[in-house]
Amino acid sequence: MSSAKEDIHQVVLRYCRGVDRGDLALVRSAYHPDGIDHHTGFDGTVGEFITWLAAKIAVFEGTMHLVGNHMVSVKDHRAVSEAYGIAVHWGNPADDPSVNFSCGVRFIDRMERRDKGWAIIERWASREWTRSEVGTFVAKGAPGPSGSRDDTDPLHVAMEWL
Amino acid sequence: MSSAKEDIHQVVLRYCRGVDRGDLALVRSAYHPDGIDHHTGFDGTVGEFITWLAAKIAVFEGTMHLVGNHMVSVKDHRAVSEAYGIAVHWGNPADDPSVNFSCGVRFIDRMERRDKGWAIIERWASREWTRSEVGTFVAKGAPGPSGSRDDTDPLHVAMEWL
Amino acid sequence: MSSAKEDIHQVVLRYCRGVDRGDLALVRSAYHPDGIDHHTGFDGTVGEFITWLAAKIAVFEGTMHLVGNHMVSVKDHRAVSEAYGIAVHWGNPADDPSVNFSCGVRFIDRMERRDKGWAIIERWASREWTRSEVGTFVAKGAPGPSGSRDDTDPLHVAMEWL
Repeated sequence: MSSAKEDIHQVVLRYCRGVDRGDLALVRSAYHPDGIDHHTGFDGTVGEFITWLAAKIAVFEGTMHLVGNHMVSVKDHRAVSEAYGIAVHWGNPADDPSVNFSCGVRFIDRMERRDKGWAIIERWASREWTRSEVGTFVAKGAPGPSGSRDDTDPLHVAMEWL
Repeated sequence: MSSAKEDIHQVVLRYCRGVDRGDLALVRSAYHPDGIDHHTGFDGTVGEFITWLAAKIAVFEGTMHLVGNHMVSVKDHRAVSEAYGIAVHWGNPADDPSVNFSCGVRFIDRMERRDKGWAIIERWASREWTRSEVGTFVAKGAPGPSGSRDDTDPLHVAMEWL
Repeated sequence: MSSAKEDIHQVVLRYCRGVDRGDLALVRSAYHPDGIDHHTGFDGTVGEFITWLAAKIAVFEGTMHLVGNHMVSVKDHRAVSEAYGIAVHWGNPADDPSVNFSCGVRFIDRMERRDKGWAIIERWASREWTRSEVGTFVAKGAPGPSGSRDDTDPLHVAMEWL
């Protein structure tokens, strides 16, 4: 994989980790300062997006943005990136479909390489399908590791060791 | 990643993009002209497969073929590729399970490198599980970007800029 | 991608293939001999984990561990790896939620490179969400390739050719 493609891949992954761990600085780092975002229910600058996202994150107990297929077309310092994702959202009350749903999304990004590296200048979070998860989520059945948005998350515990 | 593995990865991704965007030429490009495909409900040559697929695509409003794990074993100009996927299908009427389902699939491919590069000579689309989505899909709740099979798709809009 | 990251990616994929194909030696190869695993309902050494896993696998008809986002931080011979996954489990009876469920998992691994290469020294399988699949799985509707845990699996058939 070319260095550009790998760098662009990391931008996409940073966004997902940032949202899921509630790390807004990490989300912001995926965009150039003049970046623009188009989401379901949102259109605006990255600054406005971060504000919107912070409020969204607060209404969910947790989210998971899994991405797969990633195709990138690079032309000099510009690129178009498409990443397929499934985003799972859960929250309270459990019977509220606005906080318990999964969706298929394609993150379609115009990216540019500037002094600080590759980042998004315009993103379309294209919503492909939406599935209600009301009545489907259940307890996991036994104790074990689970995620959070604070420093008790297993990722942060593991990173301490490094 | 070796160049062969990366090239083979692109073959798998081209197939998915081709199906989901309704770009049959792109799907066809993933196979050598004498390629063979084994799908749920289909066995035949790539030419026959494209005909079968065109009819299938027409009955769905949309599809999303997300792939993850990709393991490749390369031996000279031959390779075996396995890619895990989740394929989501939606269509009308919404209560028809034959056009509203998700499935787990493993794309297991014999690939060969010829003059025009790596492509599939035989594919098994191994169906692991199938889930009805009748009664689960819901509207996305607010306006925003969404996919299509024509040139209004956000991918094509972004590519114009490149 | 650096060689370390690619090697670490293969460790994660070997684990998934090993579990899904019932190849416990392949699962074991993802860990160093003194490795430790933390799962929902399990904490112990890799040896104990393999025993626990063998019993778990036996109660399911099949499983599919699809992974996407993979972020790795490498420092010399040590690394922290995070891979996002969706694990689908199916079994009998079909109305038993303990053998028919999907879950979101993050595999968070401390890895070390030793003489035999990179492998896990400690894994947290962080369970993010769990969804019952009772009443959702359906027959696939037509004949076609499907997976197994024996040498009839399409992967093994394809590998014979290589």
